Amino acid sequence: MNATTDNAVDAPVRAAVTVLGLGPMGQALARAFLVAGHPTTVWNRTPSRADSLVAAGAVRAATPAEAAHASGLVVVCVLNHEAALAILDTAGDALKGRTVVNLTADTPVRAREAADWAQARGVTYLDGAIMTPTGTIGTPHAVFLHSGPADAYEAHRATLGALGGTATHLGPDPTRAASHEVALLDLWWTSISGLVHSFALARAYGVAATDLAPFAKDIGNLVTGFVDELAKDADSGEYPGDESDLASAATAMAHIAHATEEAGLDATVLRAAQNVADRAVAAGHGQDNMLGMLAAITRPTP
Amino acid sequence: MNATTDNAVDAPVRAAVTVLGLGPMGQALARAFLVAGHPTTVWNRTPSRADSLVAAGAVRAATPAEAAHASGLVVVCVLNHEAALAILDTAGDALKGRTVVNLTADTPVRAREAADWAQARGVTYLDGAIMTPTGTIGTPHAVFLHSGPADAYEAHRATLGALGGTATHLGPDPTRAASHEVALLDLWWTSISGLVHSFALARAYGVAATDLAPFAKDIGNLVTGFVDELAKDADSGEYPGDESDLASAATAMAHIAHATEEAGLDATVLRAAQNVADRAVAAGHGQDNMLGMLAAITRPTP
Repeated sequence: MNATTDNAVDAPVRAAVTVLGLGPMGQALARAFLVAGHPTTVWNRTPSRADSLVAAGAVRAATPAEAAHASGLVVVCVLNHEAALAILDTAGDALKGRTVVNLTADTPVRAREAADWAQARGVTYLDGAIMTPTGTIGTPHAVFLHSGPADAYEAHRATLGALGGTATHLGPDPTRAASHEVALLDLWWTSISGLVHSFALARAYGVAATDLAPFAKDIGNLVTGFVDELAKDADSGEYPGDESDLASAATAMAHIAHATEEAGLDATVLRAAQNVADRAVAAGHGQDNMLGMLAAITRPTP
Repeated sequence: MNATTDNAVDAPVRAAVTVLGLGPMGQALARAFLVAGHPTTVWNRTPSRADSLVAAGAVRAATPAEAAHASGLVVVCVLNHEAALAILDTAGDALKGRTVVNLTADTPVRAREAADWAQARGVTYLDGAIMTPTGTIGTPHAVFLHSGPADAYEAHRATLGALGGTATHLGPDPTRAASHEVALLDLWWTSISGLVHSFALARAYGVAATDLAPFAKDIGNLVTGFVDELAKDADSGEYPGDESDLASAATAMAHIAHATEEAGLDATVLRAAQNVADRAVAAGHGQDNMLGMLAAITRPTP
């Protein structure tokens, strides 16, 4: 691409980028590229999804192949990898020699399949994960994880920077981003479901969610403050419950679950957590800290 | 109490305080009072538990009655309210006219029983909750909640300040601290169990917990950052899922749970959360945000 010589402002030349898939996340990605000044080509199965992006300066492609032809970097973000590969398949040879950044959420197994698919077709493949909601894209709050060839990541790092926030390259293994993503979404959904449940429980006791909120944030910060210590223990394989042990934790969970049921509410999530703790205690991990639960998690209910 | 006139330093006079129950938390409480210069009397069923405190300047009482006699403020922190009331009962009339601050963790129903018990005996009763681990006591990180008569709280506020951190008086209803506590512990245990599970899942994919940790903290901060918005929605009773709806969340949870099981791990906690979401979706809340789960939480599985 050449900079136009009649450009009064010494604007940097932005690399062209293609976005395949224009759900809410795909639209947010395309908009961030546009805002940062990248020539942006978009495609979606339902073409009207591109209307507002085209109004903002995007080029609408009629097919994935046409969209792929337009840019050296092709970003795809759809429902799952099956859908992503189906779309990439229709692009045929148009992707050859180009780099695909697959920001579609899926598992490490599917990331490996996608990387193999790309290699067989001469396509450079980066697998990515978006760890923050749509509203964060293009803002400092966005968090992206990437894995795949380091040189490909470096080559497109500046362009991907248009998506905002922080991006981390986790290494050449293409499954690495998805591995992190699955574990982090596990944490996210479990925590959010716990938060909603705490609001339900507070309400049952006549406490408004907004009254509970400042203390719920204290708890959130307390959990976050434990992450490093717990992670170190987890990796060391030694987790002595000197300060608070799993046996006490199991009792405490049973107590809270009982209170929840007494209040007439569903306690199935906490009961499931308690059951994991109980099984770990029964297997001899009562004197461990909370990480003693690992024993029961890695040995599922028969 | 009178300040000794031969005291060279103009030390402030500290109120006497009694601590009943010397488990790890009771010991931490007594130590914080001692460190702050309060004449501290302690009692425990197993007297030897007081040894290190006595070495640090505490007075060991032979009975709960003797301990209660020594101070205008009596702090009790034992296994549960049943144990607390059993101990307070043995103190008999010694508690009359004094203030009991019950920092024992239990339910709002038990807090009400304890308040009634105290009222019938002419004892002023404050029910409290300690929201942070033993190690935080006496440090800026401790978090205490109190409920009960405002004048009693004000009268002992300075002494309770010796325990460190932040203390909040939640109003005259004695059940209020326990109501918050149960809801917050529900959030705590669910979140911690989610964190441990995310480490297990990461490990199954070959990702060390310490490698996941920085991103797990991002997720923790993301959850905490959502608390106020979600709380406002919960209280308003309106939770439109414009940005992300419960139907998609249920699908995402099922996906992560499936990946977890595929990796050979226990997924019962996330499956339970997914089941709550599924039931709420089936009840017509698929277009709500995550708070749509409230419908299924308040209507337990038949």
